[in-house]
Amino acid sequence: MATVDRWLLPDGIEEVLPPEAARIEVARREMLDLFQRWGYEFVVTPHIEYLESLLTGAGRDLDLRTFKVTDPLSGRQMGFRADITPQVARIDAHTLRREGPSRLCYAGSVLHAQPRALTTSRSPIQLGAELYGDASPASDVEVISLLVDMLELAIVPDVHMDLGHVGIYRGLAREAGLSSEVEQQLFDALQRKAMDEITALTESLPAPLSKMLRALAELCGGREVLDLAQACLVEAPDDVHAALDDLLAIADALSLRYPELPLYFDLGELRGYHYHTGVVFAAFVPSVGQSIAQGGRYDDIGADFGRARPATGFSTDLKTLVSLGRMQLVEPSAGIWAPDNHDVYLWQAVQQLRGEGSRVVQALPGQALADAHEAGCDRQLLLSDGRWQVAPLAS
Amino acid sequence: MATVDRWLLPDGIEEVLPPEAARIEVARREMLDLFQRWGYEFVVTPHIEYLESLLTGAGRDLDLRTFKVTDPLSGRQMGFRADITPQVARIDAHTLRREGPSRLCYAGSVLHAQPRALTTSRSPIQLGAELYGDASPASDVEVISLLVDMLELAIVPDVHMDLGHVGIYRGLAREAGLSSEVEQQLFDALQRKAMDEITALTESLPAPLSKMLRALAELCGGREVLDLAQACLVEAPDDVHAALDDLLAIADALSLRYPELPLYFDLGELRGYHYHTGVVFAAFVPSVGQSIAQGGRYDDIGADFGRARPATGFSTDLKTLVSLGRMQLVEPSAGIWAPDNHDVYLWQAVQQLRGEGSRVVQALPGQALADAHEAGCDRQLLLSDGRWQVAPLAS
Repeated sequence: MATVDRWLLPDGIEEVLPPEAARIEVARREMLDLFQRWGYEFVVTPHIEYLESLLTGAGRDLDLRTFKVTDPLSGRQMGFRADITPQVARIDAHTLRREGPSRLCYAGSVLHAQPRALTTSRSPIQLGAELYGDASPASDVEVISLLVDMLELAIVPDVHMDLGHVGIYRGLAREAGLSSEVEQQLFDALQRKAMDEITALTESLPAPLSKMLRALAELCGGREVLDLAQACLVEAPDDVHAALDDLLAIADALSLRYPELPLYFDLGELRGYHYHTGVVFAAFVPSVGQSIAQGGRYDDIGADFGRARPATGFSTDLKTLVSLGRMQLVEPSAGIWAPDNHDVYLWQAVQQLRGEGSRVVQALPGQALADAHEAGCDRQLLLSDGRWQVAPLAS
Repeated sequence: MATVDRWLLPDGIEEVLPPEAARIEVARREMLDLFQRWGYEFVVTPHIEYLESLLTGAGRDLDLRTFKVTDPLSGRQMGFRADITPQVARIDAHTLRREGPSRLCYAGSVLHAQPRALTTSRSPIQLGAELYGDASPASDVEVISLLVDMLELAIVPDVHMDLGHVGIYRGLAREAGLSSEVEQQLFDALQRKAMDEITALTESLPAPLSKMLRALAELCGGREVLDLAQACLVEAPDDVHAALDDLLAIADALSLRYPELPLYFDLGELRGYHYHTGVVFAAFVPSVGQSIAQGGRYDDIGADFGRARPATGFSTDLKTLVSLGRMQLVEPSAGIWAPDNHDVYLWQAVQQLRGEGSRVVQALPGQALADAHEAGCDRQLLLSDGRWQVAPLAS
């Protein structure tokens, strides 16, 4: 490998330089502090684990995205985390084992062997919050509200929220007694809103069920969709009505809290159908084709770790949040230039200023006052009347 | 794999739970803010890179410690970072390409396929600072001073600092014309202070050189060692004297700045000999067998990325720093309990309190006031005179 490309980074793997890195650090702190004010406790999960732990529950579709290695100590297969959610579920189910609700949050890099899409980073910084132990829509409302607050804090403009509920399709599919193969085919067709395929796949079913399943593909739009759904799905089994009622309760609570936030509903959109068990949601902005933050209910995730607990939460990519958001760019605070001088009184003056929060850059041998500007300094330490004092930089 | 051990973490891989995770987060912020006040700019390096980039320069002995995978996109071999220093060197040498000095700092997890020692973590959080572009002892004094300040900020008690300089042994070995095989054997013998072996390996050399090389094993102790060395090494080549002069200058400057800090010198201790090029240093505390922070000069590290720049810096493990330090334990700030009530005025009161920095936890359906204590709350929101107001929790 020639020197010239030794520094090339793999596709989708990024480094973050000043001052962008400082912006990401500031955003990270502000978001974690927000989560803390909502009662969410910070946890740090490992970057590597045994593969079985990483791919359990939520992780089935993560298999292809996970880098795998053999542990030289145990000989067992390990994976690099491609998602932090299953790790936090393990902490709730096994390690903390609390009786009441747990609120947990995290921020850290994940790695994707395969990107989600061609232009997607393979090394996002995943930031998220999870609420365990309560199955009611109140928890869903809380995590969606926290997501909205997070986007407001990041000053991401023109956000809209898509809401769905996997229980609606799941209840209809169960009632129809679809084979798992047909259920999967119909699921795929619904994602693509391929009406011809949907019609073909449901034509052998009893007419009311066939009609309701076909209706799902068209039940998308504003708040009116929910009223329409109640009319269309009147003959659906009870669990479908319960799902719809939950979705209505969540939508009403959100509208009360965020009257300006556009809500869209899509009852055929089944984001994360394989592991979600209830409401699913995603935030979008007009300029980006994919969701910028997403989540939902996944009540069974803890089962593989010995305890199935109700769970709902969301995640986002901190780098995306910073690039889309209009948080004020953090300029390095203007600093004070100290001359290249070994006087211990200069050292004491420098340390005192740093202790008070000032940024002080000391000149290295050969550096001139002209270098102070490049170091982001607008003042200097000068010996005046026998004391080191801060003075403006002559410009 | 049975459910019972699905959650077991691999040896040396840790998760961090509340409230320890909050302590680590606070320490991370305080240390990065300290680095910022000294003029060091934050960078974020990738967790995975092409293996050649990771193992260049400083990385030769990292080979065994690095987890390796094949990139499914490029087919090339990649490694998970086991050290951040070579990545920051690449940023300085290739990406930033500044003419003057660069000060950079970082904080992030690294992974070790093999632990450094049996009881060592394989997933430390590496925290460090690097100064590029100046070859003078002033830079070494700056980074060692920053290391000392970092340990003081973490309130790590009873620190002492070991100092050495690889240029002394290197200059004598070159003068003696040792074969690389013998140089390596003598290096190993010096690390173990195995006098018999050292004598055997040097007996065919001219008497003054043999005597000087043997003396290295015994030149360890306090400040007097440096005077002793000047006497013992009087016949050494010029580069050995230059190295000794640098070490003296660094020791004198540190003593002036930190008169209470115990300094030890070991001219036969050659930590990181293969990549260090000048002064080497390490901080120790009595209770821990290994150094708790370490660094040194490594002037050639940028060469593989197209530009050899003088470089000096240090690193530590944030988790070690927090466990040894006596930084005040961060108690989650006492919170305010909000009842399970959908009143929009309650929501507004909650959001206002959070906006002012308070921690507010809202009850979920079925939770009683008794649960407020478990959620770390000491106050509650009560409807009083038609307004939601903060009141003490009846205990």
